[in-house]
Amino acid sequence: MKKLIKPKAIIFDVFGTVVDWRTSITLQCQESSEFRKLNIDCALFADKWRGKYRPFMYKVGSGKLPWTNLDDLHRMALDELLDEFKIWNLTELEKQNLNRAWHSLKPWPDSIPGLCRLKRNFITGTLSNGNVSLLVNMAKHAGLPWDCIFSAEMCKAYKPDQKVYQMAISLLDEKPQNILMVAAHHSDLLAAHAAGLATAYIPRPLEYGIQNNHVDNQDVSFVDIMVDDICALADTLDS
Amino acid sequence: MKKLIKPKAIIFDVFGTVVDWRTSITLQCQESSEFRKLNIDCALFADKWRGKYRPFMYKVGSGKLPWTNLDDLHRMALDELLDEFKIWNLTELEKQNLNRAWHSLKPWPDSIPGLCRLKRNFITGTLSNGNVSLLVNMAKHAGLPWDCIFSAEMCKAYKPDQKVYQMAISLLDEKPQNILMVAAHHSDLLAAHAAGLATAYIPRPLEYGIQNNHVDNQDVSFVDIMVDDICALADTLDS
Repeated sequence: MKKLIKPKAIIFDVFGTVVDWRTSITLQCQESSEFRKLNIDCALFADKWRGKYRPFMYKVGSGKLPWTNLDDLHRMALDELLDEFKIWNLTELEKQNLNRAWHSLKPWPDSIPGLCRLKRNFITGTLSNGNVSLLVNMAKHAGLPWDCIFSAEMCKAYKPDQKVYQMAISLLDEKPQNILMVAAHHSDLLAAHAAGLATAYIPRPLEYGIQNNHVDNQDVSFVDIMVDDICALADTLDS
Repeated sequence: MKKLIKPKAIIFDVFGTVVDWRTSITLQCQESSEFRKLNIDCALFADKWRGKYRPFMYKVGSGKLPWTNLDDLHRMALDELLDEFKIWNLTELEKQNLNRAWHSLKPWPDSIPGLCRLKRNFITGTLSNGNVSLLVNMAKHAGLPWDCIFSAEMCKAYKPDQKVYQMAISLLDEKPQNILMVAAHHSDLLAAHAAGLATAYIPRPLEYGIQNNHVDNQDVSFVDIMVDDICALADTLDS
């Protein structure tokens, strides 16, 4: 810890930082593919689906697409992906259900106990590119005890656009330095830092699977806190 | 109950419906006035403060004021009120603290047990004219277990403007008839009904105090559910 951080509110990136999207999507894909007797590499399917997230978001950011929420971007990506995997026999309902897998991603083992501890002393919320209904459904499903849900959808811009961080500052009605942004990703933390927020980095080396041990080589020396998980964050802020 | 209502999400008006603003503001006023040895009728002070809410909101709705959140409207109203009560000796900090009384209003006795029951089976949230930080602070202070906080501030328009109800429909990504709006006030329910939401009316006869037993004579025959309190709403939806 570089300096004493005493936030009023702690806001979290969700995909990768709080929930393990890869394992959850892989399992959901396996369920669908067993039912349909497809022979596909479901972990690869999950990675390729997630891989389309950024390019699709950039289409919104650059104006090539009008505002489109994450559910709808996931669906556009899924349609491309099914084509690439030559899966042409899913019904519309099956596609909708597969797309809803993003609403019930599993938290990392430390997420619920860590968030429950943090909630006692701080306002805890999301600051995610996920749409509101996705984040609310995920919280209900997994038991994530958020005090508030802030979503890119509420300002129709995706992180790392400054609009998203400015929205959180404005709605929380706090000085930026009293808000701690927690994320596993460099670009998110850098943008939060630029907005004046305090930052906590939780590397999630397993985000892309155990074989793809993920080391972010980018400079994160600007962050205020770097910890292994959300329970360790609660330890740090308790002390 | 007029018809079978099986909502996916239940959204609540807050002031008067979930929390007893009058008792809380009266007590806060008494605390301030004892400290400053003022001799004022604190219940009247509370009523007059609340009485300025609607006229100030109309100034925003009509464009006489640019978008101003409820904290700031409360403060403008307080400044007028202190003048009317000839209270000229409060410091800026005392005025700020008094204005923050709206962040820690007490729930009606049935609110917490009723909401905890409803939260088990439904998405529960606010749809309030209170600003986000006010609603989050109130929830933390009182233990209101919201799944999501929806505020007029998020669309920069005040209920009963249709924009507010449309925002909730859009963010919840549900059909309007799958969303139940709960309120103690005719105008809110009427506007929710116009937006296609299901509606539940909870008369709160004590909202304006026991001497001012409040009977709303307006026609509420259009509502889907009419119950005495939030626990009774949970009973109705359980059955």
